[in-house]
This record gives sequence, C-alpha cells and structure tokens, in this order.
Amino acid sequence: MKVITLTTDFGTRDWFVGTMKGVILGINPRCRVVDLSHDIPAGDIQAGAFALAAAAPYFPKNTIHVVVIDPGVGGPRRAIAAKTQRALFVGPDNGVLSPALANEEVRTVRLLENHELFLDDISRTFHGRDIFAPVAAHLSTGMGFRKVGPRANSYVELNLPKPAVAGDIIRGEILHIDRFGNAISNIPQALLPTAGTLQVWVNGRNAGFVEACYDAAPVGTPVSVIGSTGYLEIAINGGSAAMALGLTCGTPIRITRE
Amino acid sequence: MKVITLTTDFGTRDWFVGTMKGVILGINPRCRVVDLSHDIPAGDIQAGAFALAAAAPYFPKNTIHVVVIDPGVGGPRRAIAAKTQRALFVGPDNGVLSPALANEEVRTVRLLENHELFLDDISRTFHGRDIFAPVAAHLSTGMGFRKVGPRANSYVELNLPKPAVAGDIIRGEILHIDRFGNAISNIPQALLPTAGTLQVWVNGRNAGFVEACYDAAPVGTPVSVIGSTGYLEIAINGGSAAMALGLTCGTPIRITRE
Amino acid sequence: MKVITLTTDFGTRDWFVGTMKGVILGINPRCRVVDLSHDIPAGDIQAGAFALAAAAPYFPKNTIHVVVIDPGVGGPRRAIAAKTQRALFVGPDNGVLSPALANEEVRTVRLLENHELFLDDISRTFHGRDIFAPVAAHLSTGMGFRKVGPRANSYVELNLPKPAVAGDIIRGEILHIDRFGNAISNIPQALLPTAGTLQVWVNGRNAGFVEACYDAAPVGTPVSVIGSTGYLEIAINGGSAAMALGLTCGTPIRITRE
Repeated sequence: MKVITLTTDFGTRDWFVGTMKGVILGINPRCRVVDLSHDIPAGDIQAGAFALAAAAPYFPKNTIHVVVIDPGVGGPRRAIAAKTQRALFVGPDNGVLSPALANEEVRTVRLLENHELFLDDISRTFHGRDIFAPVAAHLSTGMGFRKVGPRANSYVELNLPKPAVAGDIIRGEILHIDRFGNAISNIPQALLPTAGTLQVWVNGRNAGFVEACYDAAPVGTPVSVIGSTGYLEIAINGGSAAMALGLTCGTPIRITRE
Repeated sequence: MKVITLTTDFGTRDWFVGTMKGVILGINPRCRVVDLSHDIPAGDIQAGAFALAAAAPYFPKNTIHVVVIDPGVGGPRRAIAAKTQRALFVGPDNGVLSPALANEEVRTVRLLENHELFLDDISRTFHGRDIFAPVAAHLSTGMGFRKVGPRANSYVELNLPKPAVAGDIIRGEILHIDRFGNAISNIPQALLPTAGTLQVWVNGRNAGFVEACYDAAPVGTPVSVIGSTGYLEIAINGGSAAMALGLTCGTPIRITRE
Repeated sequence: MKVITLTTDFGTRDWFVGTMKGVILGINPRCRVVDLSHDIPAGDIQAGAFALAAAAPYFPKNTIHVVVIDPGVGGPRRAIAAKTQRALFVGPDNGVLSPALANEEVRTVRLLENHELFLDDISRTFHGRDIFAPVAAHLSTGMGFRKVGPRANSYVELNLPKPAVAGDIIRGEILHIDRFGNAISNIPQALLPTAGTLQVWVNGRNAGFVEACYDAAPVGTPVSVIGSTGYLEIAINGGSAAMALGLTCGTPIRITRE
C-alpha cells in the first residue's frame, strides 16, 4: 500500500484538493493519500519547500510526495519527478522540491513528458489535477520511474539564506512562522556552541536565551529552543513570538555568547 | 473499495466532519472517505453545488457523493439519494445536488425514508451524522439502491443564472470566487467566438482580454482564461482579481469582440 | 483495520499533522487515520476535550483516539493512555482526555514510558510526532496495552462547570461556540422539564424559548434546541447566536419556566 502526500497552496475552500484525490483513486484505488498542508500562502515556493523538507523524512520508504505550489502553471516552467534513495518527489521545477531533495541522495530527475500518463484534457490552470496527480498515481501502482519522461540534467534549486558564524556571533534569518507564532530560523543545532549562555537578538532587541524547552522561561517571556525540525526557533511561553517581537520570514537573527 | 466524498459547510474547527467519518467507518470499515470541502460558506447552497459539480466528474465510477449544506435541517425539507450512470449522490433536497446531476444521466431519485439505515437516535440538528453518513455507508457496502426509500417523482433544481448572447456581446455572471481570488463565471468555452480579440468588462471597466493562460498578461494585470472547470474566469497574474476588481458572486460580466 | 483519530491545536498551515500521519503509516501502513479537528484554539484544553467527548462515541469499537493539546510539552506533565470498554485514548495528562473518559467505563490508565515505542530522537517541542503518534500506531497493530508503560494510579480531570437547578430555574454556562455561531451549554436534556414553556436568558436579556428545531423561530430570532450532543444550545435561525447575543465560552445561561 503506497502513500502519496500532497502539499499545495490550494486552500480547503475549493474543490481542488478533493479533485486531485479523485483522480488518484481512479488510477490507484489502493493508495493512501495524506495531506501535508494546503494552506501554504498562495505562490509561496519557499514556504511549501520548507514544509515538505520538514515532513518528508518521517514518511515510510517509497512514499510519493507531490507538491503543487505552481505560480507559473500553464507557462514555460518544466514539471519534474525525482527519485531518491527513499522516496519519489513530483512537482513543478521551480525550486519547491529542492530543500527536501537536499536531505536525500538524489538518484535521477526526470521531466514529466509522457502524455499517456496525464488526463486527456489538460487545462492551462490546474496541472495538479491534470498532470501531477495522475503521474503520482501511476507511480504508486509500481510503474517504472523512467516511464514519466526523459532525464533532466538539472533542476531549479532554491537559494535559501545560509547562516554565518564570525567568532562568537552567529547570524541567521527567520525562515518560517508556525501556527503558534514560533519563528523557525535557518540556524541548525550543530552551529551552536555547546557551552556558555547564548543570547538571541532580533529587531535590535534582546529576545532571551537559548534554553532546553519552552517553559524554561516565565510565561510571556521570549525563549529560544532547538525546535522539532532541528533548527533554532524563537518562542514565547504561552504566546506568539512573531506577534510580540515583530518577526516575519526574512527577519535577521543574531546569537551571541555571554 | 468504495469512495465516499463529503462536501459540507461544517468547517474544520468542530468535530462534525470527524464524527460523520466515525459513523461511516463503523458501518463500512473498508470504504475511503475523501473531503471535497468543508469550508463552503454556512448555508450557501449554490457554492456547495458548484464545488460538487466541478469535482464529481473526476472521481472513480460508483463513488458516493454526500453533500450536507442543509440550512433547513430538522424542518420539512426532504432528504434524497440519486443514482446516475456513474455515481450516487446523497443529500438534502434543496437543490445542492442538482448542478452535479445536470452533468450526468440520472437513473432514479429516491427519498431517504428507511429508518433502519439511520442512527438509532436522530437529532434535530445534525442529519449529516444521523442520516446522510449512515445511508452513504450502507450504500458503500453494496446495499441495493432501492433500499434507501421510495422513488421521488422530482427533486429541487437550483436556478443558476444562464449566460446570454446578443450579436457580438456575451453577458454572464460570476458564480464563484476561488481561494486565489480568481472569479469563475457561468460562460462556457463553447459560447466564445474562436476568432477575434475578446475584451472582458466588469463593474463598468475593462478587465483585459481573453487569453490562453494567466501569464499572457503582465504581472498585476487582469486576464481572462478558460479555467479548469471549462468556464471563463477572470484572474490577475500574481494577485486577486476579486479584490482588485471588486468581484463577488453575482457580479455581471460582459464580453465584447474587438 | 484499526482507526486512529487525531485531535490537535496544530492548525493545518504547517506540516505537523501530516508528519504525525507519516509516522503512523510507517509503523502500521494499514490503519486508518481520521482527523477530528486540528483547529482547536492553541492550548485550549477544554475545547479539545469537548470535541473529543462529542465525537468519540460515534467511532467503531477499538478506535484509538489521540489528542495533542499540549501546552506543557517538554515540561514535567505526564503522558498517558487509557483503555475503556470500547476504545483507547492517548494524550498528555492535562485533563484533555477526561470528559471523553467520563462517558466510558475506564479499565486501566497507563503512563507512556516505554521508550522503545517512541521515535529515536525525541524533540522537546513535538511529542505528537515523537511519542503520541508512534505509541498509537503500535497499539493499532494489536500490541498489548500494558506494553505502553506502568499503571497510573490517577489522571488529571478537567473541572468542567456543572449546571444547577433551583426550583423552576436552571443555571448553566456556555461551553462551546460552534462554526455556525451556535452556543452549546452544559445543560443536558434530562435537566429540562418536559412540560411548560421554557424561556432562555443570557447577558440579561431574553434569548427566546426552548423549541424542537431551529426553524421553530422566525429567521433572525434566537431559539434554543437540544443539539446533536444532547445539550441545550442557543442558535439563531439563519445567523450567529454568538455574534448577535455576545456569547462566548463561560457566558452564564439561565432557563425559567413560564
């Protein structure tokens, strides 16, 4: 029983996601479809990429991950599928797959060019339904990966900002605000000194210390912890750090050793 | 393995949808339940009808579509099930099923009157749980369609506005605003002349031309395309046409040939 | 085929819920995962408890209910599982399970302390993924309940407000506002006199009568009915009672016999 995950910016008000599932179940009634998120902000490739990269490692081997954050649908952007040592990835070639692929050993990337796998009528606006869903469903039946189309020599890679270390100062950036208002940075645990007290600075103000867990700080006080994705995140015990500290994607963050 | 789809205005904050799935799985643990949308605006029969009609054709044969947009629950409105050449439809008889049925060959319509199929205690406010879910689940086990209740001689049909052609002018109306702010009209591709430049007018202003795809117009500019449902929709490349042009359900739209 | 339900305050924007499902399917690819709600307000234990208690009775026997409303994650709060005559319940020991358990015969409660069932790396912030999901998945494979950990002698119980009857006056409180703006109270049907006209009072004003169904009152008028959970709820035919009458969780409600 194969698993297909879906990550889109389609929202849940319309019939778009349900329709993709209808197409998938029509081709492979036995596969399992799991929603990662459909509330990625419209056209926000980085947010979709971040969600996929965070979740994909927790899925069973041979899961097929489909991402449709596709502001260029109907235009010249390519559609691709990638095979790694543990999963398959399907989506537009706009970088949305690349952070997840960076966590894996990529074996082959192919262009989705086999029209026999698509729906008969291909709209200009909904390739999630007409191309990505049916290709993923065919792959879930065990169809050989090479059938999706010719090899791609390269694929678009997102240029996610990298953290930098200079002496005792680590500089990074907020990459994601989660539903609780926690602000997840691009600073991995490995960059943090294991000794000493680490102070966090954002928007020119002190945002507390790096601690072991949220409630190491009093309620209402900022605290930074290594979050569940392995990156430093700024939280407020019982509140929204993003609201209280004015954090958004792209806000610079600085860590100093006291 | 049968598929049941659910379309409701229950939202996802409460336990209503999950409870319907519990009832379904208690009766048929093997059926697959797919959400079309639960964020149909409360009581908006036309919006629910539109979603179902757009999605149903993409589901496998013999899918059972359940719709619970049911502002008259507990009152005198009837509950029905319809069998067509490729699917079953279950819901209140308030017109919400009719646009989907108009896409199919309707074989029989029956009233849901077999209380043996319902839950033991029937609330006055939640027939989704007490009547529609268990009836659909029993149908998904292969139970004969006639067991749901006696034949209905008719069913309520929604009066969706029809487009009109007068010389070189086509007049229609916006039927749905999707999550991207695209405004979907009631003008099907077949009504559009295949030659000439077609100009779109809404709210007394020029809203650009009919093009082959969204990015035929510069970013931020209105553009109209045949959308994924086969109807003309007004979009803005990279933005919300509904916001920018003040479009809502019911906004008149006019197309002229230049 | 076992069913696992999920109730969280994770929202649907992030990858949290999808990741839990990936973990579950990696351990038991055959189990069915049903979302009760992920839009419980952040950290609102009472709201999550209410949703679970309302839905659980409608699920098949041996369903495993997982709740992750867990503001104390990473701190000293315990994690528990409870076995009742018809289901299993898994979650933090903060009271969120207790109203659902109050509807059942509780057989045993155990602490989740068997680290062999957890993911290898346990984050400080996401026990839904690292502890609750894998424990539930292992239970769904038929693993003996005692394997989760040692017996707990007690568990935290929520102190939900109780209704009171004094002569002809019944006093209660609003416990939940649903998506339609209906205000569900803690007054069960059994407390209401079966004869006489019952008048409802909130915020110092008359909020109409107890009726058999929503549309017993004219459109736009408040009306109270026994809702689908078996408790009195205040509604407005075609509108939001919460908005019109200023009702929130905790608003006192008074019923008098005329």
